[in-house]
Amino acid sequence: MDRLPGFRDFYPEPLPHSDVWSADLRQWIFSRWREVALRYGFREYDGPPLEPLELYTTKSGEEIVAQLYNFIDKGDRAIALRPEMTPTLARMAGAFQRNYPKPLKWFAIPQLFRYERQQKGRLREHFQFNADILGETNIAADAELVALLIDALRAFGLTEADFWIRLSSRRAWQDFFTQKGGQPDRAYDFYQVIDKLEREDPSESEKRLQSLGFSLETVREFIQAGQPTAELAALLDNLSERGLGAYVKVDYNVIRGLAYYTGVVFEAFDRKGEFRAIAGGGRYDHLIKLMTQGKADISAAGFGMGDVVLTELLHQRGLLPASRMELAAYLLIEDETLRPASLQLLQQLRDAGMAVDYSLVPLKSDKQFKRALESRASCTVRLEKNEAGTLLSRIKNLATRTEQLVPFNETARWIKSSGPDQK
Amino acid sequence: MDRLPGFRDFYPEPLPHSDVWSADLRQWIFSRWREVALRYGFREYDGPPLEPLELYTTKSGEEIVAQLYNFIDKGDRAIALRPEMTPTLARMAGAFQRNYPKPLKWFAIPQLFRYERQQKGRLREHFQFNADILGETNIAADAELVALLIDALRAFGLTEADFWIRLSSRRAWQDFFTQKGGQPDRAYDFYQVIDKLEREDPSESEKRLQSLGFSLETVREFIQAGQPTAELAALLDNLSERGLGAYVKVDYNVIRGLAYYTGVVFEAFDRKGEFRAIAGGGRYDHLIKLMTQGKADISAAGFGMGDVVLTELLHQRGLLPASRMELAAYLLIEDETLRPASLQLLQQLRDAGMAVDYSLVPLKSDKQFKRALESRASCTVRLEKNEAGTLLSRIKNLATRTEQLVPFNETARWIKSSGPDQK
Repeated sequence: MDRLPGFRDFYPEPLPHSDVWSADLRQWIFSRWREVALRYGFREYDGPPLEPLELYTTKSGEEIVAQLYNFIDKGDRAIALRPEMTPTLARMAGAFQRNYPKPLKWFAIPQLFRYERQQKGRLREHFQFNADILGETNIAADAELVALLIDALRAFGLTEADFWIRLSSRRAWQDFFTQKGGQPDRAYDFYQVIDKLEREDPSESEKRLQSLGFSLETVREFIQAGQPTAELAALLDNLSERGLGAYVKVDYNVIRGLAYYTGVVFEAFDRKGEFRAIAGGGRYDHLIKLMTQGKADISAAGFGMGDVVLTELLHQRGLLPASRMELAAYLLIEDETLRPASLQLLQQLRDAGMAVDYSLVPLKSDKQFKRALESRASCTVRLEKNEAGTLLSRIKNLATRTEQLVPFNETARWIKSSGPDQK
Repeated sequence: MDRLPGFRDFYPEPLPHSDVWSADLRQWIFSRWREVALRYGFREYDGPPLEPLELYTTKSGEEIVAQLYNFIDKGDRAIALRPEMTPTLARMAGAFQRNYPKPLKWFAIPQLFRYERQQKGRLREHFQFNADILGETNIAADAELVALLIDALRAFGLTEADFWIRLSSRRAWQDFFTQKGGQPDRAYDFYQVIDKLEREDPSESEKRLQSLGFSLETVREFIQAGQPTAELAALLDNLSERGLGAYVKVDYNVIRGLAYYTGVVFEAFDRKGEFRAIAGGGRYDHLIKLMTQGKADISAAGFGMGDVVLTELLHQRGLLPASRMELAAYLLIEDETLRPASLQLLQQLRDAGMAVDYSLVPLKSDKQFKRALESRASCTVRLEKNEAGTLLSRIKNLATRTEQLVPFNETARWIKSSGPDQK
């Protein structure tokens, strides 16, 4: 029986097969995301992976349903597996935001689901690092988010040579559209053309722009000029003051397809342009009010970063760790009469916080040693008795292959302090 | 718009409301589970939260469907949200177990789902710490699992005064059933009666036992005697050698309801008997073969521990941490001309690995200080210029309220080394 198409299994490393994913790597990525978010003073939240379908149609209209895992449950409720986190955030913040000091700086690492029938072979789930600031309209909030995004990528060893953040402004495009005489009710169609400009055939873009009263040339001139709005200028200043100026650039090619952005928008890309966007976000000041039926009128900005493109990029740059399995010690039991004492030692070492493994059953010496090496243990520990019948631990450092005999009860302390580096 | 009934939102602390859950506490629990499992040499895995429905009906029969979140997807597949992890483990191990050295010691922390229509108000999801050892029939594997379970509870500060593990044996009950002349095809019915013995009216148990050719008295005598099988005796010895003897006791009241257990079974309970089982598991040597249609004939034992009963128990014992939000420093910006330099310092401190927050916008001094206290920051840092125009950091330890002036570029180092304790 196979897993469902578009879903991933996460195996322990070493990976048995090239098309399966690693639970160790996933945990490594989550830990870094979480650590950076906490460093920035963001607080974690999460909602259920299942939500009422209405939560998504309210935000995105009925069209979204075609892309969702949705169904009717046994209580006749229309429900869906969450395709994105923002509606859950709006629902949760709407319920309790008054109980928190403003602004709210919240993050989550949800698994998200999309059922896209037409794109066979593409994943139907991914994990996404979501960070949002609620209740602060000042551009300083956008700057804090972009800085967090930069550091969330730097946490993996990526540098300014690897990625950059393209900064743009939905408001700049809105002003452009209005000043050039665009019809207010066609603004969203216009944004859609801009969003596809880099991927679509120019003649097609030209045709669609003309139907909206624009020429491709005017649009290109506006992008080319790249004149930062006052807001973008303040954002650039803020990031420069943090020493992060080299990571960002104004680029009006970015506009973000979704309807609800209201201010600065941004996307992270690898410098070589080999991958899809690594992350994207922006300001959406009216969405939470819309989604809570006016109950919570709170401004918001945020971004999302998926685990799939990030993993591909880290893999290509050689930044994925080889293996995450590391034991402080592997216990060798060669004399079965010493198994009870070895179990006692095992518990002592684990109680002292060390990762320790051993063979559950009698096994030839060389096989036990092979398991110690496979487990990337820092040392092996083997009990033996001296002539006086006193138990001693023979500790072998697996990096230097040097050995040391220490008293039974000092084994944990010895490995921890003077022994091989603790993992 | 509300969340679905039976589901939980996880909010950042401080908790806004008593009936919502804390994402910080959830992460605190997951971290401890993960840390203990790694200490025991277990490796993490995970599968998708959605699986083919057939995976569950193969294991548990068609009856299980009534308890599942199941639906037909847009590709006409019958699928279900996972109600337990064992079928996914069987599927994954079945596919790749040959690539790993034996035994496999694997753990996961999945979210599991059940749609139980009749039990309104009860949760329809929970998180479960799952640990399994595959490929080792020796009782030493069962002992390793029970020891892991004990340490997974001790990791939260629970002691032998708080919980105990009731050890039993499906095999002992099987032998009893056979020796007393039970009909082989009624064995499962018999196990069901034993499983309900402590919760059911005795006259009802007596009636059901008589229909199977047994008397309640004989059954009670067998439980009362509590004679350990050779296997249970070896298990007890093993745990005693580890110094964990005080946590376990043979108790034949435990049998575990599910059909597929083949050997030792066990359940963890609070000593006072106030809560439902905290965890449960046992040996299921034939299940993976059954589930992989013979492809992987591999023995197995394991257990699961949910987050809900555990959280209730920890709460009742006063073992839940008060709050998880802790900042190394809160940056005060009282002179707006120093905001650019403050942003530079902010980045320096965060780059040095410290959790630091600050007010995004100008705010009165006392309000900034209030935010610093709310964030449980260890210190506040405020930039100022001396007469020579040199930037200095005024660091106030919020525990002792003592202040210190240090040069701008030494702020990070000072807070880290000689400053307040790092969180």
